[in-house]
Amino acid sequence: MIKNKIISEKYILKKHLTKLTFNKDETFQLNNDAAYLNLPSNKHLIVTNDTILESVDFFKNDSPESIANKIVTCNLSDISAMGAYPYCYTLSLSIPKNINEIWFKKFSKKLFSLQKKYNFFLLGGDLSHSKKIIISSNFFGYSPKGKIIKRKGAKINHDIWVTGNLGESTIGLKILQKKIKVNYMDKKYYLNKYYYPNHCPFGDKIFNLVSSAIDISDGFFGDLENILKLNKLGASIKSKFIPFSNKTKKLIKNKIVDINILLSSGDDYQLLFTANSKKALIIERLAEKNNIKISKVGKIIQQKGIFLDDNKINLINKSYQHFS
Amino acid sequence: MIKNKIISEKYILKKHLTKLTFNKDETFQLNNDAAYLNLPSNKHLIVTNDTILESVDFFKNDSPESIANKIVTCNLSDISAMGAYPYCYTLSLSIPKNINEIWFKKFSKKLFSLQKKYNFFLLGGDLSHSKKIIISSNFFGYSPKGKIIKRKGAKINHDIWVTGNLGESTIGLKILQKKIKVNYMDKKYYLNKYYYPNHCPFGDKIFNLVSSAIDISDGFFGDLENILKLNKLGASIKSKFIPFSNKTKKLIKNKIVDINILLSSGDDYQLLFTANSKKALIIERLAEKNNIKISKVGKIIQQKGIFLDDNKINLINKSYQHFS
Repeated sequence: MIKNKIISEKYILKKHLTKLTFNKDETFQLNNDAAYLNLPSNKHLIVTNDTILESVDFFKNDSPESIANKIVTCNLSDISAMGAYPYCYTLSLSIPKNINEIWFKKFSKKLFSLQKKYNFFLLGGDLSHSKKIIISSNFFGYSPKGKIIKRKGAKINHDIWVTGNLGESTIGLKILQKKIKVNYMDKKYYLNKYYYPNHCPFGDKIFNLVSSAIDISDGFFGDLENILKLNKLGASIKSKFIPFSNKTKKLIKNKIVDINILLSSGDDYQLLFTANSKKALIIERLAEKNNIKISKVGKIIQQKGIFLDDNKINLINKSYQHFS
Repeated sequence: MIKNKIISEKYILKKHLTKLTFNKDETFQLNNDAAYLNLPSNKHLIVTNDTILESVDFFKNDSPESIANKIVTCNLSDISAMGAYPYCYTLSLSIPKNINEIWFKKFSKKLFSLQKKYNFFLLGGDLSHSKKIIISSNFFGYSPKGKIIKRKGAKINHDIWVTGNLGESTIGLKILQKKIKVNYMDKKYYLNKYYYPNHCPFGDKIFNLVSSAIDISDGFFGDLENILKLNKLGASIKSKFIPFSNKTKKLIKNKIVDINILLSSGDDYQLLFTANSKKALIIERLAEKNNIKISKVGKIIQQKGIFLDDNKINLINKSYQHFS
């Protein structure tokens, strides 16, 4: 599936990308414009696609490792939110002519290590030239038949859960943009969270326990609202239960960052899900077993809107602003 | 699967793209970041991805209908070359901010009519901003289990077949670039072939008859060479059997276009396939039944390289030049 649009790079990329196929028959070793998948009859194939762009999702001089990490993480996060585990992916690379072989080497090495870690392979790719780097990817995952987690399904009184810690990638971006100043160790910590976010591979463990799920890729409020709108319901959130790391709590306390901003933007790639409160104990046990931090942050309510400590959130402040 | 990167366009695109899902459950009506596919156990799922770029694969002011036609055709052509029929697709649109709603209306209307014609639906999409239009798409098709047409499989003495007529899109491009001049009716004819190429939906009819296949998307010589290299064989081609329309034959005869250029470039989207000569009759009958023009243009030979009327083709002249 390596296309012929760039000749000099064709050799370089084939050299660096072919190993990512893990020698699977389905990939034809990238010698074909198409590939195939064998279809287990007891599964659904989950399909997600995400595009990341220079100047929007990453910056021109970001390391190739960080860019590789982002395209993988945003897609694996979508797969996890569907209750599935990853299987393979395709990669469409649009790249400037000045990108050199060292870039590809680093980029593919990072992909290789993430593939090994989460057990998926490169099914096919497509190469072309553009002024800026644009990477588009389709990821494929499997979920047990009939067990897909949907966004619709939340009911009144269901618990609202969040994995991991929120706001860390946003703080990293603000440090990078010199909008806030922190000490050296904190800077290192948050920049790493910004450059190398991780998805939360918990969806395929809880697919039969939750009533709805989404991954947080546009800020907690924005993605919570996506769930609420589809279900025509509201949410009551307690700020004291929202998961922040101790570092972040200190920054909030010292008014270096604002909690509303941390909940309104950023690529957290944590899971937000709802579940009947009867399932709380088993969800907590599964999280502990899989070494995943989870927090019950509130309840689904009948009244529409998001209420943070009983104050209705102004929806203009919720999300996406960083793209306007 | 409509992502939130562009807000104003989100509404417009959802308005125009949701109808392309044909209301299939699998698509979640584009309300989810992911979608799913149910997997028939007696089939392979064929996956292909293709990216088309402004200034490379189309021009800035090309009509949205033509751009829609191109992204569909190049992908359906790959699916057909694998012996499969289309099922669904995902669309990653990277678009400049000045693209307006009328553009989307025309773009989606063309997609809708092609989907109806060839029976496939939109599974999911992803939207983002870029300076130039970049459209990346994954197409999914089905083929009977164990019956995928591969590029490897051609044997010595197998016939080499080509569908349709070659060179028409290339002539259209040259007219557009004012490199050649033709009369008004011819201009209209070739420009239409350039703006609205069609794939050849013959692959799923002959999957069990052919020994290898490829779609011609980089010129006849280039794609033939792809097959030959993989099979470590050569080809003897007779120029008199290469399919050109009467219009094109006249242009060749009058030295307005050069046959080598017509065979070295252009998005013909015809199929090139090889088959045991015992299958010739049944292939011809199937072509007639499906109203598809096919031509036996030569034979696979042991000696490597492409021989046109016994003269070895210089490989520098084969393909890709339009991208260098």
